[in-house]
Amino acid sequence: MIKSPVPSELEPRSGEMTTAPMAVPWKQLLLTALESNAHLKHSSFLQLATIGCNGRPSNRTVVFRGFEESSDKIQINTDSRTRKIEELKRCSYAEICWYFTDSWEQFRISGLVDIIDGSSSDPAKVEQRHRSWFASSVRSRMQYLGPNPGLPALTEHPHQELVLDPSSGPVAAFCLLVLDPNEVDYLNLKTSERVMFTTSTSVSGEKCWNSEKINP
Amino acid sequence: MIKSPVPSELEPRSGEMTTAPMAVPWKQLLLTALESNAHLKHSSFLQLATIGCNGRPSNRTVVFRGFEESSDKIQINTDSRTRKIEELKRCSYAEICWYFTDSWEQFRISGLVDIIDGSSSDPAKVEQRHRSWFASSVRSRMQYLGPNPGLPALTEHPHQELVLDPSSGPVAAFCLLVLDPNEVDYLNLKTSERVMFTTSTSVSGEKCWNSEKINP
Repeated sequence: MIKSPVPSELEPRSGEMTTAPMAVPWKQLLLTALESNAHLKHSSFLQLATIGCNGRPSNRTVVFRGFEESSDKIQINTDSRTRKIEELKRCSYAEICWYFTDSWEQFRISGLVDIIDGSSSDPAKVEQRHRSWFASSVRSRMQYLGPNPGLPALTEHPHQELVLDPSSGPVAAFCLLVLDPNEVDYLNLKTSERVMFTTSTSVSGEKCWNSEKINP
Repeated sequence: MIKSPVPSELEPRSGEMTTAPMAVPWKQLLLTALESNAHLKHSSFLQLATIGCNGRPSNRTVVFRGFEESSDKIQINTDSRTRKIEELKRCSYAEICWYFTDSWEQFRISGLVDIIDGSSSDPAKVEQRHRSWFASSVRSRMQYLGPNPGLPALTEHPHQELVLDPSSGPVAAFCLLVLDPNEVDYLNLKTSERVMFTTSTSVSGEKCWNSEKINP
């Protein structure tokens, strides 16, 4: 049994094999990091790496939009016209690197990404995409009305004439990414502690989190 | 023409075709960003994405250790026992994502990484690795004497009994990575400007930088 910087109330009890909060100790570490860095606007910014269509690494800053309800899945809003969508359609694996500049903590979170765009027909996903759209500010939503990201810029101020009804639902370009983590590498640079969280499947088919203290 | 406060010792000398300011415009933008964010300790922290040995993306925070002399190549120190070394030996491509939290600028820098470790026999590389070792603080150098990164932690305070002579050269685990950029995607979130810098080869075989303004 390892001693990790997990608050004692969150430590898994021996024999526990469920998906109760106890089973996702890294999520509690992440929520604590978010809380202690909340005074910094950029604390919700993280770097998402994918495999480019040319087989080379691709890496960009995105914004954490909260966990999917009652889960450890990470939500990210993006424009379906960006290159990462094509990349994730070819290879769904991604790794988040999230460094908290005030608490000196790093989370490397790898997992599979589900793309929820306007073509999703699953009612739960349609609903989730709607919720994420309305959870964004109107200013954020305006971005999806702009010209195609990454294409040559033809106008100086493309956003000037755009108008968006705050009550209208998600536009075609609005896309929700949901990353389902299967490995989390946690590093605390203040304490020099590093913990690797990995998943296994229980006999009943549930995802279980295991942790091991490793060298920083 | 970009006016930037580049320290005079870093300015290319006239007559140097490949490193002239006009030829590497993104380098000037980066030096300006470093200058305007210099009050933040984490301004030299960037995220380096590679292709993992399992073919999935891998992403971690590393520290910018300056440009290679008279070039646009980016230097990063690392431990040769970390997973990224094995990954870069299989696939030398990497992409840096570097977000400046005060000036709201992002640089995505992709290129090939050269690994300079204790096995390098090229005198210029041996010298470069030595310089990078001595440019690090003694405290930084101590990290390379610690137990194997990523392996299970066996001791609580592994660094306690380590002693390092400040005059001794690089230890076996010390490794210098040199990223040679071939594409830079620059985004300024304050001005909503985005510029893509790409390379081409001139008739005389030299690397030339081209730039194009693209939609953010």
